[in-house]
Amino acid sequence: MIVVMKPGSTPQQIEHVVNLVREMGLKDHVIQGTERTVVAVIGDDRHKDRSRFETVPGVEKVVPILAPYKMASVEMKKERTEVPIGKAGSLGGKKIGVIAGPCSVEDRTQILEVAHAVKEAGAIGLRGGAFKPRTSPYAFQGLAEEGLKYLAEARDKTGLAIVTEVMSIEQIPACVEYADVLQIGARNMQNFNLLSAVGETRKPVLLKRGMSATLEEFLLAAEYILARGNQQVMLCERGIRTFEDYVRNTLPLAIVPELHRRSHLPVVVDPSHGTGKTHLVDGMCRAAVACGADGLIIEVHNDPEHAMTDGAQSMTPKMFKDMMTAIKRIALAVDREV
Amino acid sequence: MIVVMKPGSTPQQIEHVVNLVREMGLKDHVIQGTERTVVAVIGDDRHKDRSRFETVPGVEKVVPILAPYKMASVEMKKERTEVPIGKAGSLGGKKIGVIAGPCSVEDRTQILEVAHAVKEAGAIGLRGGAFKPRTSPYAFQGLAEEGLKYLAEARDKTGLAIVTEVMSIEQIPACVEYADVLQIGARNMQNFNLLSAVGETRKPVLLKRGMSATLEEFLLAAEYILARGNQQVMLCERGIRTFEDYVRNTLPLAIVPELHRRSHLPVVVDPSHGTGKTHLVDGMCRAAVACGADGLIIEVHNDPEHAMTDGAQSMTPKMFKDMMTAIKRIALAVDREV
Amino acid sequence: MIVVMKPGSTPQQIEHVVNLVREMGLKDHVIQGTERTVVAVIGDDRHKDRSRFETVPGVEKVVPILAPYKMASVEMKKERTEVPIGKAGSLGGKKIGVIAGPCSVEDRTQILEVAHAVKEAGAIGLRGGAFKPRTSPYAFQGLAEEGLKYLAEARDKTGLAIVTEVMSIEQIPACVEYADVLQIGARNMQNFNLLSAVGETRKPVLLKRGMSATLEEFLLAAEYILARGNQQVMLCERGIRTFEDYVRNTLPLAIVPELHRRSHLPVVVDPSHGTGKTHLVDGMCRAAVACGADGLIIEVHNDPEHAMTDGAQSMTPKMFKDMMTAIKRIALAVDREV
Amino acid sequence: MIVVMKPGSTPQQIEHVVNLVREMGLKDHVIQGTERTVVAVIGDDRHKDRSRFETVPGVEKVVPILAPYKMASVEMKKERTEVPIGKAGSLGGKKIGVIAGPCSVEDRTQILEVAHAVKEAGAIGLRGGAFKPRTSPYAFQGLAEEGLKYLAEARDKTGLAIVTEVMSIEQIPACVEYADVLQIGARNMQNFNLLSAVGETRKPVLLKRGMSATLEEFLLAAEYILARGNQQVMLCERGIRTFEDYVRNTLPLAIVPELHRRSHLPVVVDPSHGTGKTHLVDGMCRAAVACGADGLIIEVHNDPEHAMTDGAQSMTPKMFKDMMTAIKRIALAVDREV
Repeated sequence: MIVVMKPGSTPQQIEHVVNLVREMGLKDHVIQGTERTVVAVIGDDRHKDRSRFETVPGVEKVVPILAPYKMASVEMKKERTEVPIGKAGSLGGKKIGVIAGPCSVEDRTQILEVAHAVKEAGAIGLRGGAFKPRTSPYAFQGLAEEGLKYLAEARDKTGLAIVTEVMSIEQIPACVEYADVLQIGARNMQNFNLLSAVGETRKPVLLKRGMSATLEEFLLAAEYILARGNQQVMLCERGIRTFEDYVRNTLPLAIVPELHRRSHLPVVVDPSHGTGKTHLVDGMCRAAVACGADGLIIEVHNDPEHAMTDGAQSMTPKMFKDMMTAIKRIALAVDREV
Repeated sequence: MIVVMKPGSTPQQIEHVVNLVREMGLKDHVIQGTERTVVAVIGDDRHKDRSRFETVPGVEKVVPILAPYKMASVEMKKERTEVPIGKAGSLGGKKIGVIAGPCSVEDRTQILEVAHAVKEAGAIGLRGGAFKPRTSPYAFQGLAEEGLKYLAEARDKTGLAIVTEVMSIEQIPACVEYADVLQIGARNMQNFNLLSAVGETRKPVLLKRGMSATLEEFLLAAEYILARGNQQVMLCERGIRTFEDYVRNTLPLAIVPELHRRSHLPVVVDPSHGTGKTHLVDGMCRAAVACGADGLIIEVHNDPEHAMTDGAQSMTPKMFKDMMTAIKRIALAVDREV
Repeated sequence: MIVVMKPGSTPQQIEHVVNLVREMGLKDHVIQGTERTVVAVIGDDRHKDRSRFETVPGVEKVVPILAPYKMASVEMKKERTEVPIGKAGSLGGKKIGVIAGPCSVEDRTQILEVAHAVKEAGAIGLRGGAFKPRTSPYAFQGLAEEGLKYLAEARDKTGLAIVTEVMSIEQIPACVEYADVLQIGARNMQNFNLLSAVGETRKPVLLKRGMSATLEEFLLAAEYILARGNQQVMLCERGIRTFEDYVRNTLPLAIVPELHRRSHLPVVVDPSHGTGKTHLVDGMCRAAVACGADGLIIEVHNDPEHAMTDGAQSMTPKMFKDMMTAIKRIALAVDREV
Repeated sequence: MIVVMKPGSTPQQIEHVVNLVREMGLKDHVIQGTERTVVAVIGDDRHKDRSRFETVPGVEKVVPILAPYKMASVEMKKERTEVPIGKAGSLGGKKIGVIAGPCSVEDRTQILEVAHAVKEAGAIGLRGGAFKPRTSPYAFQGLAEEGLKYLAEARDKTGLAIVTEVMSIEQIPACVEYADVLQIGARNMQNFNLLSAVGETRKPVLLKRGMSATLEEFLLAAEYILARGNQQVMLCERGIRTFEDYVRNTLPLAIVPELHRRSHLPVVVDPSHGTGKTHLVDGMCRAAVACGADGLIIEVHNDPEHAMTDGAQSMTPKMFKDMMTAIKRIALAVDREV
């Protein structure tokens, strides 16, 4: 880190900062500029509370230099991580993996019908929520274990890998039993106890970015899981909250190449939540593939007009099939395949 | 809700919408405008998935009319809720309650020292984290139950009510045993399982707004707790994430009068997280009191330079005392007291 | 618009609203819901100040139904607008037009060198600022008319259309004389006098979205130009300001299909400003083409290390050429061409 | 500035950076950290394009150290600036100055009526727009010079100083003739030609913060005016654009103490635009005074239901008077007066 002193800071103040740096087991390097003095701090300060310097007399601000994450970074692991999901395929290799399915598991017929449709169109994973995080306490909360059983049946019939959200620690055992990938939702991206707990399992984890998480916070959330020994983490961009009002969320696709530059983990894009509008999903699937996404996760419902959740952003099986046809062509144009 | 049809929508499309409305058990009222038709939907649609209409052919958009929360609203309960915290006082009445203390409980001496200092300056509650949500897995994670015991000892010695964060369901019993108020942190504002679980207790809950939560989402999170029978909820604004970079968070104080207008619950302001900078805390405490806050929660550390967490936003006991003197005068000017 | 009354509003209050509606020359339609009354207002209220209802006693809120823009909308003009730029080509047809060049015109050699390079790689337009909007008064402010002359010379030598920013009304005559397209910068998107003034010319206008403009405000800015009789408007997305900190701006590509859905005007994407980081430009060019952009505008500098402005986001001619090769393939995959 | 090299950067790359630094006339200081090398750059780099380093091979990022503004800073001028407005009073001293009036000058009777009312309640300035920046080309655009004459008449009758917005360079002479303070609106905060032009006058300037301007950009806009020799600049916070939807803008009051910490210029708050909702204006006036604002600017209309613009955020004269009574008490509590 760099500790920037105020103009007119006294030698005593600078010395005090130097002493604090040494107390922390770090080395100091004082540079007298033309207008102000800075104290460059040498050593690994990742695990220190750097912000404490901001209250020290004479200090103007503290500038971190080292990124706070480590295991998620390309500096720690040069080769890209490829995460197998079930027997169906993997994400992070040349082939782009598509996961599709309804927001919620509503009943057995629905989930089987959607599963067959998306399988046929080329998906390798089936998404579907058994436990639902709902903004309103009065909204449909999911079928719980019954839903998981329907998903497992769909896997048996189609070969698709099952991706389902785990909302709390108690739900982990059941999800581990029935599913192939544990999804951490955006609202839980900084539920650190839950992150640690899925880090203890050996199931692949699809980690969604919080809707106002910075890139560093996102990678640190992945770090929580990696630090517990689970290396199979996929990073999923699902849109951020901004002032824009024609979408439910703003999808910042530049994060795809930026995550690839900083991390070895596969990057998945969720254009359904990333826009919240069915008519924008196709375009954002195309864009995500073009800029290097390793996977897509998409909401597909056989009857969106009667969907119990997220009707406004669900594709029909027909739309999904057309989109798959389109992205296959784009994938080839960027030397990938779907 | 109002379903707005596209210009040129057909009679068949309008009829289809009308049928969907009736299927949902609601009544319809079709209005032909000069440029477009709208279908006004009559009845309580709070628990319905309104968004599904957006995928129906001929529909342009759906406009909700009813607020989705109910128990938190002034329409359900006209008199303001006053929440007693321990034997120390209450929030929501004429007297403004101040809760203060360190970010984390670091050791016994620290917490007792801070407790005595803030008590003397006029605080009624002592804050201190035993379980810490930390962005980095490598950062100090708190003293857990040992920390709770130190807090309880501080209460015995000072009479201050203890406010501490509960991060997961497993931590609830210990927090209920030792603390007077359960705090739900901003990162957990939409951890719905946790909200329901604290709703089952009969301890007062200090609910912090998520850093990108809308006002409606905030009140719906309160509704989760209220709906389980716990009526003692305090709403705490702690800053939102915006593009501003001279603060850690932007503190939107207009939410104080707006929450009072919509809800009967007490409103608390956290200027420490709300700015992230010690030198801005005093000004925002003053402003919060002036615009009607029922309480403040403030980080105070006896040695911010050596704080293990949040050093950059902690007041010293001296700063806190000066601030308390200032807000006492402002409180009188707005016919309140501290 | 829909005027939503508060619960418990009185018949007198409703009647007062009805009278105000009629005073405005509009028709009213009162609907009694189960929980509240709404007054649907029938007629073209685009040019009225709807917000005034919000201060009327008994009114809770006002919900607009009609979009405020008209000439920019697909409802007014079904066929897509194609804008020819110089003799070089056009934007809005099957062929995607690429405009490239330095942020600022720095000297004659530079601009000619870049012009030849981008022409050879397939660009149809040359961008370059002669008048520069600079955040700091101490920064390089551009070569003014001398810069325009170099641009015109570059056009003569390459056939590229010249695109240059006009910052104030006084600069219009010179820009009209030397350039083929007038660019309105993001900071001037709501400089309404300037919009009206370029609307009086018959030059194509490239209108950049303001960095915090909503989609409606963006289309209304276009409407200012269209309303003065200039139909040759291109809408340019250049990134918005959000909390994200790994980019200079967040590029919200979903606006491309959304603008196509609402407006007949061509949509251009600027990934250079849209990210502010050279290493992200290539990915966002690919994504923009994949999701339907009609054009790209890109910063290319022959020596970014010595660029006087925007070095951090400029491609070298080599990078630009590689990117062009990539997007040609993607364009074919979406049935377009570059 | 600090140039941070990538891990594994080569000695040649570091040397290349050092050479670039020297070419710019600055001095370098290379520090070898445990994980990466940084090049500290010594000297005044305010006027250099620092970003160009970001494209240099081996460079990871560039961290600025010096604030880019100078004349606006407390380092250049220790004593606070007090700006007299007309003969009515001043802003920046112990007395808080209140400016009030309608959004637009609509007719002679209206402006005189409002002027008398706000004068009587204690205002020292009268605001009123003669030239109106309107989001829609179809909305009321102001009375132009006729409006200025009504304002001047109001000054003659009440002694209030006249504050009016100047939207373009051509309007400056008329505004200088009739008004006492030139207002630069939020949408023009980075209209650099306009800033320079008002910098050439000797009239006080009320500079509104752009709705997504950072604090640095805001102070740099002030710097444009100061750099032309006009020292009478007042900084006005009027709300920023965020995701919040219960307000038109989010009012970030922490900027008041932060601006006072960095700059000697007076700070004015506009709670009318800062919230966009009449019922929130009173609370934010109170809060602004409590946290140190030097002035307030408030929309007051004698008949908000019929206001041609901004009805939703205008106080009636009665509300204004009550608010003035309230802030007089708060001002005393913070050792100021109104």
